[in-house]
Amino acid sequence: MRFHHIPDETVRRLPFYLRGAYRLSRQGVQSISSRELAHAVGVNPWQVRKDFSYFGDFGTPGVGYKINILIKHISKILHIDKIQHAALVGVGNLGSALLDFQGFAMYGLDISAAFDSHPDKIGTMVGDVEIEPVTSLFTLKNRGISLAILAVPEGQAQEITDELVDAGVRGILNFSPCYISVPKKVKIITIDIAIDLARLPYYLPSGSAG
Amino acid sequence: MRFHHIPDETVRRLPFYLRGAYRLSRQGVQSISSRELAHAVGVNPWQVRKDFSYFGDFGTPGVGYKINILIKHISKILHIDKIQHAALVGVGNLGSALLDFQGFAMYGLDISAAFDSHPDKIGTMVGDVEIEPVTSLFTLKNRGISLAILAVPEGQAQEITDELVDAGVRGILNFSPCYISVPKKVKIITIDIAIDLARLPYYLPSGSAG
Repeated sequence: MRFHHIPDETVRRLPFYLRGAYRLSRQGVQSISSRELAHAVGVNPWQVRKDFSYFGDFGTPGVGYKINILIKHISKILHIDKIQHAALVGVGNLGSALLDFQGFAMYGLDISAAFDSHPDKIGTMVGDVEIEPVTSLFTLKNRGISLAILAVPEGQAQEITDELVDAGVRGILNFSPCYISVPKKVKIITIDIAIDLARLPYYLPSGSAG
Repeated sequence: MRFHHIPDETVRRLPFYLRGAYRLSRQGVQSISSRELAHAVGVNPWQVRKDFSYFGDFGTPGVGYKINILIKHISKILHIDKIQHAALVGVGNLGSALLDFQGFAMYGLDISAAFDSHPDKIGTMVGDVEIEPVTSLFTLKNRGISLAILAVPEGQAQEITDELVDAGVRGILNFSPCYISVPKKVKIITIDIAIDLARLPYYLPSGSAG
Protein backbone atom coordinates (compact mmCIF):
# COMPACT_ATOMS: atom_id res chain seq x y z
CA MET A 1 0.00 0.00 0.00
CA ARG A 2 1.51 3.37 -1.08
CA PHE A 3 0.04 6.83 -0.73
CA HIS A 4 1.15 9.68 -2.92
CA HIS A 5 1.27 13.46 -2.61
CA ILE A 6 1.32 13.33 1.18
CA PRO A 7 3.08 16.45 2.49
CA ASP A 8 6.35 15.68 4.30
CA GLU A 9 5.04 17.67 7.26
CA THR A 10 2.15 15.20 7.60
CA VAL A 11 4.53 12.24 7.44
CA ARG A 12 6.70 13.99 10.03
CA ARG A 13 3.75 14.19 12.44
CA LEU A 14 2.63 10.56 12.05
CA PRO A 15 5.26 9.14 14.47
CA PHE A 16 4.12 11.74 17.02
CA TYR A 17 0.51 10.55 16.71
CA LEU A 18 1.76 6.99 17.04
CA ARG A 19 3.77 7.80 20.17
CA GLY A 20 0.76 9.62 21.65
CA ALA A 21 -1.48 6.64 20.87
CA TYR A 22 0.97 4.23 22.53
CA ARG A 23 1.14 6.45 25.61
CA LEU A 24 -2.67 6.64 25.85
CA SER A 25 -2.89 2.89 25.31
CA ARG A 26 -0.54 2.27 28.24
CA GLN A 27 -2.83 4.48 30.34
CA GLY A 28 -5.74 2.20 29.49
CA VAL A 29 -7.47 4.65 27.14
CA GLN A 30 -9.43 2.80 24.41
CA SER A 31 -10.70 5.60 22.19
CA ILE A 32 -10.15 9.34 21.85
CA SER A 33 -11.45 12.34 19.93
CA SER A 34 -9.25 14.19 17.45
CA ARG A 35 -9.27 17.04 19.99
CA GLU A 36 -7.79 14.81 22.70
CA LEU A 37 -5.22 13.32 20.34
CA ALA A 38 -4.30 16.82 19.17
CA HIS A 39 -3.82 17.87 22.78
CA ALA A 40 -1.65 14.82 23.54
CA VAL A 41 0.59 15.59 20.57
CA GLY A 42 0.55 19.38 20.76
CA VAL A 43 -1.07 20.30 17.44
CA ASN A 44 -4.45 21.72 16.42
CA PRO A 45 -7.44 19.34 16.14
CA TRP A 46 -8.03 20.39 12.52
CA GLN A 47 -4.43 19.38 11.81
CA VAL A 48 -5.08 15.85 13.08
CA ARG A 49 -8.21 15.50 10.93
CA LYS A 50 -6.46 17.00 7.90
CA ASP A 51 -3.41 14.73 8.32
CA PHE A 52 -5.54 11.60 8.68
CA SER A 53 -7.75 12.54 5.73
CA TYR A 54 -4.85 11.76 3.37
CA PHE A 55 -5.06 8.10 4.32
CA GLY A 56 -8.81 7.69 4.30
CA ASP A 57 -10.45 8.63 7.57
CA PHE A 58 -10.25 5.91 10.20
CA GLY A 59 -12.25 7.66 12.90
CA THR A 60 -15.88 7.01 13.87
CA PRO A 61 -18.25 10.00 14.17
CA GLY A 62 -19.13 10.66 17.81
CA VAL A 63 -16.61 8.08 19.06
CA GLY A 64 -13.37 9.36 17.61
CA TYR A 65 -10.44 7.07 17.07
CA LYS A 66 -10.03 3.62 18.58
CA ILE A 67 -6.48 3.58 19.96
CA ASN A 68 -5.57 0.06 18.80
CA ILE A 69 -6.84 0.76 15.27
CA LEU A 70 -4.97 4.05 15.23
CA ILE A 71 -1.70 2.31 16.17
CA LYS A 72 -2.27 -0.37 13.55
CA HIS A 73 -3.09 2.11 10.77
CA ILE A 74 -0.27 4.55 11.43
CA SER A 75 2.26 1.73 11.76
CA LYS A 76 1.08 0.33 8.45
CA ILE A 77 1.22 3.72 6.72
CA LEU A 78 4.78 4.26 7.97
CA HIS A 79 5.76 0.70 6.97
CA ILE A 80 6.81 -0.07 10.53
CA ASP A 81 4.14 -2.70 11.14
CA LYS A 82 6.96 -5.19 10.49
CA ILE A 83 10.48 -4.93 11.85
CA GLN A 84 12.83 -2.71 9.85
CA HIS A 85 16.52 -3.38 10.13
CA ALA A 86 19.01 -0.53 10.08
CA ALA A 87 22.79 -0.32 9.85
CA LEU A 88 24.74 2.12 11.99
CA VAL A 89 27.90 3.64 10.52
CA GLY A 90 30.29 5.26 12.99
CA VAL A 91 30.52 3.77 16.49
CA GLY A 92 31.96 6.80 18.32
CA ASN A 93 30.28 8.40 21.32
CA LEU A 94 27.09 9.22 19.44
CA GLY A 95 26.99 5.90 17.59
CA SER A 96 27.47 3.98 20.84
CA ALA A 97 24.68 5.98 22.44
CA LEU A 98 22.41 5.11 19.50
CA LEU A 99 23.27 1.40 19.79
CA ASP A 100 22.43 1.52 23.51
CA PHE A 101 19.23 3.44 22.92
CA GLN A 102 16.11 1.47 23.81
CA GLY A 103 13.63 3.79 22.12
CA PHE A 104 13.90 2.45 18.55
CA ALA A 105 12.00 -0.78 19.26
CA MET A 106 8.72 1.11 19.83
CA TYR A 107 8.82 2.13 16.16
CA GLY A 108 9.65 -1.36 14.89
CA LEU A 109 13.27 -0.45 14.28
CA ASP A 110 16.25 -2.66 14.96
CA ILE A 111 19.89 -1.66 14.53
CA SER A 112 21.19 -5.02 13.41
CA ALA A 113 24.57 -4.03 11.93
CA ALA A 114 27.29 -1.56 12.91
CA PHE A 115 30.37 -0.37 11.02
CA ASP A 116 33.46 1.58 12.00
CA SER A 117 36.87 2.29 10.48
CA HIS A 118 38.87 2.06 13.71
CA PRO A 119 40.82 -1.26 13.92
CA ASP A 120 40.43 -1.42 17.74
CA LYS A 121 36.66 -1.43 17.45
CA ILE A 122 36.25 -3.92 14.63
CA GLY A 123 35.20 -7.34 15.92
CA THR A 124 34.07 -6.04 19.31
CA MET A 125 30.45 -6.42 20.41
CA VAL A 126 28.08 -3.63 21.39
CA GLY A 127 25.08 -5.40 22.88
CA ASP A 128 24.47 -8.23 20.43
CA VAL A 129 25.88 -6.39 17.40
CA GLU A 130 29.43 -7.07 16.21
CA ILE A 131 31.24 -4.08 14.78
CA GLU A 132 32.29 -4.64 11.17
CA PRO A 133 34.84 -2.72 9.08
CA VAL A 134 33.45 0.06 6.85
CA THR A 135 35.08 -1.74 3.94
CA SER A 136 32.27 -4.31 4.35
CA LEU A 137 29.43 -1.83 3.74
CA PHE A 138 28.85 -3.41 0.32
CA THR A 139 27.60 -6.59 2.06
CA LEU A 140 24.41 -4.76 3.10
CA LYS A 141 23.12 -5.40 -0.40
CA ASN A 142 22.52 -9.07 0.34
CA ARG A 143 21.34 -8.63 3.91
CA GLY A 144 17.99 -6.94 3.36
CA ILE A 145 19.07 -3.77 5.20
CA SER A 146 17.84 -0.67 3.41
CA LEU A 147 18.04 1.86 6.26
CA ALA A 148 21.19 3.39 7.70
CA ILE A 149 22.10 5.74 10.52
CA LEU A 150 25.09 7.94 9.86
CA ALA A 151 27.16 9.02 12.87
CA VAL A 152 30.52 9.66 11.21
CA PRO A 153 32.65 12.83 11.16
CA GLU A 154 31.43 15.46 8.71
CA GLY A 155 34.37 14.92 6.35
CA GLN A 156 33.44 11.27 5.75
CA ALA A 157 29.67 11.66 5.49
CA GLN A 158 29.38 12.07 1.71
CA GLU A 159 31.76 9.22 0.85
CA ILE A 160 30.06 6.79 3.26
CA THR A 161 26.65 7.86 1.94
CA ASP A 162 27.72 7.09 -1.64
CA GLU A 163 28.81 3.60 -0.54
CA LEU A 164 25.54 3.06 1.34
CA VAL A 165 23.53 4.06 -1.72
CA ASP A 166 25.59 1.67 -3.87
CA ALA A 167 24.83 -1.05 -1.31
CA GLY A 168 21.09 -0.53 -1.81
CA VAL A 169 20.32 1.69 1.20
CA ARG A 170 17.26 3.85 0.46
CA GLY A 171 16.74 5.70 3.75
CA ILE A 172 19.43 7.50 5.76
CA LEU A 173 19.20 9.24 9.12
CA ASN A 174 22.16 11.62 9.18
CA PHE A 175 23.60 13.02 12.41
CA SER A 176 26.45 14.91 10.68
CA PRO A 177 25.70 18.64 10.64
CA CYS A 178 26.27 18.93 6.90
CA TYR A 179 24.54 18.76 3.56
CA ILE A 180 24.78 15.39 1.83
CA SER A 181 23.81 14.83 -1.77
CA VAL A 182 21.82 11.69 -2.62
CA PRO A 183 20.01 10.40 -5.72
CA LYS A 184 16.27 11.06 -5.89
CA LYS A 185 15.40 7.47 -5.00
CA VAL A 186 17.06 7.88 -1.60
CA LYS A 187 15.48 9.71 1.35
CA ILE A 188 17.84 11.39 3.76
CA ILE A 189 16.77 13.00 7.02
CA THR A 190 19.39 15.16 8.74
CA ILE A 191 19.12 15.54 12.49
CA ASP A 192 20.42 18.79 13.91
CA ILE A 193 20.86 18.13 17.62
CA ALA A 194 21.53 21.82 18.30
CA ILE A 195 18.43 23.20 16.65
CA ASP A 196 16.11 22.21 19.49
CA LEU A 197 18.41 23.80 22.03
CA ALA A 198 18.35 27.01 19.99
CA ARG A 199 14.74 27.76 20.90
CA LEU A 200 15.10 27.16 24.64
CA PRO A 201 16.49 30.64 25.44
CA TYR A 202 13.32 32.11 23.91
CA TYR A 203 11.41 30.83 26.91
CA LEU A 204 13.83 32.20 29.51
CA PRO A 205 12.76 35.24 31.50
CA SER A 206 14.37 38.45 30.13
CA GLY A 207 17.78 39.28 31.47
CA SER A 208 18.58 35.76 32.61
CA ALA A 209 21.27 35.19 30.02
CA GLY A 210 24.46 33.90 31.61
CA MET B 1 12.04 42.42 24.37
CA ARG B 2 9.36 39.72 24.88
CA PHE B 3 6.63 38.66 22.51
CA HIS B 4 3.51 36.93 23.74
CA HIS B 5 1.01 34.51 22.27
CA ILE B 6 3.48 33.23 19.72
CA PRO B 7 2.57 29.63 18.84
CA ASP B 8 5.19 27.08 19.88
CA GLU B 9 5.21 25.81 16.29
CA THR B 10 6.37 29.25 15.10
CA VAL B 11 9.11 29.35 17.74
CA ARG B 12 10.10 25.83 16.67
CA ARG B 13 10.58 27.00 13.07
CA LEU B 14 12.64 30.10 13.90
CA PRO B 15 15.95 28.21 14.33
CA PHE B 16 15.32 26.58 10.95
CA TYR B 17 14.92 30.00 9.32
CA LEU B 18 18.08 31.10 11.10
CA ARG B 19 20.02 28.08 9.88
CA GLY B 20 18.74 28.65 6.33
CA ALA B 21 19.76 32.31 6.52
CA TYR B 22 23.26 31.39 7.71
CA ARG B 23 23.61 28.87 4.90
CA LEU B 24 22.51 31.43 2.28
CA SER B 25 24.82 34.01 3.83
CA ARG B 26 27.79 31.66 3.47
CA GLN B 27 26.83 31.25 -0.19
CA GLY B 28 27.08 35.01 -0.63
CA VAL B 29 23.33 35.64 -0.92
CA GLN B 30 22.40 39.09 0.41
CA SER B 31 18.62 39.13 0.21
CA ILE B 32 15.86 36.63 -0.51
CA SER B 33 12.13 36.46 -1.01
CA SER B 34 9.88 34.62 1.44
CA ARG B 35 9.39 32.07 -1.34
CA GLU B 36 13.13 31.38 -1.54
CA LEU B 37 13.48 31.24 2.23
CA ALA B 38 10.50 28.88 2.41
CA HIS B 39 12.12 26.65 -0.18
CA ALA B 40 15.44 26.64 1.70
CA VAL B 41 13.69 25.60 4.91
CA GLY B 42 11.05 23.30 3.43
CA VAL B 43 7.83 25.09 4.42
CA ASN B 44 5.18 27.06 2.53
CA PRO B 45 5.84 30.73 1.68
CA TRP B 46 2.65 31.81 3.50
CA GLN B 47 4.01 30.05 6.59
CA VAL B 48 7.17 32.18 6.51
CA ARG B 49 5.17 35.40 6.18
CA LYS B 50 2.72 34.31 8.88
CA ASP B 51 5.52 33.31 11.28
CA PHE B 52 7.40 36.58 10.80
CA SER B 53 4.22 38.65 11.14
CA TYR B 54 4.18 37.85 14.89
CA PHE B 55 7.36 39.85 15.36
CA GLY B 56 6.55 42.80 13.16
CA ASP B 57 7.42 42.25 9.53
CA PHE B 58 11.08 42.83 8.75
CA GLY B 59 10.93 42.29 5.00
CA THR B 60 10.92 44.95 2.29
CA PRO B 61 8.25 44.77 -0.44
CA GLY B 62 9.77 43.76 -3.78
CA VAL B 63 13.16 43.02 -2.19
CA GLY B 64 12.27 40.44 0.42
CA TYR B 65 14.46 39.86 3.43
CA LYS B 66 18.02 41.11 3.83
CA ILE B 67 19.95 38.08 5.11
CA ASN B 68 22.04 39.91 7.70
CA ILE B 69 18.97 41.66 9.13
CA LEU B 70 17.10 38.36 9.17
CA ILE B 71 19.92 36.70 11.16
CA LYS B 72 20.07 39.62 13.59
CA HIS B 73 16.29 39.73 14.16
CA ILE B 74 15.76 36.00 14.61
CA SER B 75 18.76 35.72 16.94
CA LYS B 76 17.36 38.57 19.02
CA ILE B 77 13.86 37.07 19.14
CA LEU B 78 15.31 33.73 20.29
CA HIS B 79 17.56 35.49 22.84
CA ILE B 80 20.64 33.95 21.27
CA ASP B 81 22.15 37.23 20.10
CA LYS B 82 24.37 36.90 23.18
CA ILE B 83 26.07 33.71 24.33
CA GLN B 84 23.91 31.40 26.44
CA HIS B 85 25.65 29.01 28.78
CA ALA B 86 24.29 25.55 29.39
CA ALA B 87 25.10 22.76 31.83
CA LEU B 88 25.25 19.14 30.71
CA VAL B 89 24.14 16.48 33.17
CA GLY B 90 25.23 12.91 32.38
CA VAL B 91 28.55 12.40 30.60
CA GLY B 92 27.92 8.92 29.18
CA ASN B 93 28.13 8.13 25.46
CA LEU B 94 25.43 10.60 24.50
CA GLY B 95 26.66 13.30 26.89
CA SER B 96 30.21 12.96 25.58
CA ALA B 97 28.94 13.24 22.02
CA LEU B 98 27.07 16.42 22.96
CA LEU B 99 30.18 17.91 24.59
CA ASP B 100 32.16 17.15 21.41
CA PHE B 101 29.45 18.52 19.17
CA GLN B 102 30.51 21.66 17.27
CA GLY B 103 27.05 22.64 16.11
CA PHE B 104 25.88 24.50 19.23
CA ALA B 105 28.10 27.55 18.67
CA MET B 106 26.14 28.60 15.57
CA TYR B 107 23.15 29.20 17.83
CA GLY B 108 25.14 31.12 20.46
CA LEU B 109 25.15 28.17 22.84
CA ASP B 110 28.07 27.09 24.97
CA ILE B 111 28.15 24.02 27.22
CA SER B 112 30.26 25.45 29.99
CA ALA B 113 29.62 22.95 32.79
CA ALA B 114 29.22 19.16 32.93
CA PHE B 115 28.09 16.89 35.75
CA ASP B 116 28.20 13.15 36.33
CA SER B 117 27.73 10.80 39.28
CA HIS B 118 30.50 8.36 38.37
CA PRO B 119 33.61 8.85 40.58
CA ASP B 120 35.99 7.89 37.74
CA LYS B 121 34.70 10.73 35.58
CA ILE B 122 34.65 13.50 38.15
CA GLY B 123 37.60 15.83 37.79
CA THR B 124 38.45 14.70 34.26
CA MET B 125 38.36 17.15 31.37
CA VAL B 126 36.25 16.88 28.22
CA GLY B 127 37.59 19.59 25.92
CA ASP B 128 37.91 22.57 28.25
CA VAL B 129 35.11 21.50 30.59
CA GLU B 130 35.90 19.74 33.87
CA ILE B 131 33.37 17.15 34.97
CA GLU B 132 31.85 17.98 38.37
CA PRO B 133 29.90 15.72 40.74
CA VAL B 134 26.09 15.86 40.45
CA THR B 135 26.06 16.78 44.14
CA SER B 136 27.34 20.20 43.00
CA LEU B 137 24.34 20.98 40.79
CA PHE B 138 23.17 23.56 43.36
CA THR B 139 26.19 25.73 42.47
CA LEU B 140 24.58 26.58 39.11
CA LYS B 141 22.46 29.12 40.97
CA ASN B 142 25.43 31.48 41.37
CA ARG B 143 26.98 30.83 37.98
CA GLY B 144 24.42 32.42 35.71
CA ILE B 145 23.59 29.14 33.98
CA SER B 146 19.89 28.79 33.36
CA LEU B 147 19.90 26.15 30.61
CA ALA B 148 20.59 22.46 31.04
CA ILE B 149 20.92 19.42 28.81
CA LEU B 150 19.79 16.17 30.38
CA ALA B 151 21.50 12.98 29.20
CA VAL B 152 20.99 10.74 32.23
CA PRO B 153 19.30 7.32 32.49
CA GLU B 154 15.50 7.49 32.53
CA GLY B 155 15.29 6.52 36.22
CA GLN B 156 17.29 9.58 37.31
CA ALA B 157 15.73 12.16 35.00
CA GLN B 158 13.00 13.46 37.33
CA GLU B 159 15.22 13.73 40.40
CA ILE B 160 17.97 15.58 38.51
CA THR B 161 15.38 17.86 36.93
CA ASP B 162 14.02 18.80 40.36
CA GLU B 163 17.53 19.70 41.48
CA LEU B 164 18.16 21.73 38.33
CA VAL B 165 14.93 23.66 38.85
CA ASP B 166 15.92 24.33 42.48
CA ALA B 167 19.25 25.62 41.17
CA GLY B 168 17.47 28.18 38.99
CA VAL B 169 17.52 26.37 35.65
CA ARG B 170 14.61 27.56 33.48
CA GLY B 171 15.16 25.68 30.22
CA ILE B 172 15.90 21.97 29.86
CA LEU B 173 16.66 19.91 26.77
CA ASN B 174 15.85 16.33 27.75
CA PHE B 175 17.27 13.32 25.90
CA SER B 176 15.67 10.75 28.23
CA PRO B 177 12.72 9.08 26.49
CA CYS B 178 10.34 9.81 29.36
CA TYR B 179 7.87 12.34 30.67
CA ILE B 180 9.31 14.78 33.21
CA SER B 181 7.17 17.06 35.32
CA VAL B 182 8.35 20.67 35.75
CA PRO B 183 6.80 23.83 37.23
CA LYS B 184 5.12 26.19 34.78
CA LYS B 185 8.02 28.67 34.88
CA VAL B 186 10.34 26.01 33.39
CA LYS B 187 10.39 25.05 29.71
CA ILE B 188 11.37 21.49 28.92
CA ILE B 189 11.91 20.17 25.40
CA THR B 190 12.19 16.39 25.09
CA ILE B 191 14.18 15.04 22.16
CA ASP B 192 13.11 11.67 20.85
CA ILE B 193 16.03 10.45 18.76
CA ALA B 194 13.99 7.52 17.41
CA ILE B 195 11.04 9.52 16.15
CA ASP B 196 12.85 10.80 13.06
CA LEU B 197 13.96 7.30 12.17
CA ALA B 198 10.34 6.15 12.44
CA ARG B 199 9.30 8.00 9.28
CA LEU B 200 12.18 6.82 7.11
CA PRO B 201 10.57 3.46 6.19
CA TYR B 202 7.62 5.42 4.78
CA TYR B 203 9.87 6.52 1.93
CA LEU B 204 11.18 3.05 1.14
CA PRO B 205 9.91 1.31 -1.97
CA SER B 206 7.22 -1.28 -1.14
CA GLY B 207 8.46 -4.71 -0.27
CA SER B 208 11.95 -3.60 0.67
CA ALA B 209 11.53 -4.34 4.37
CA GLY B 210 14.39 -6.41 5.69
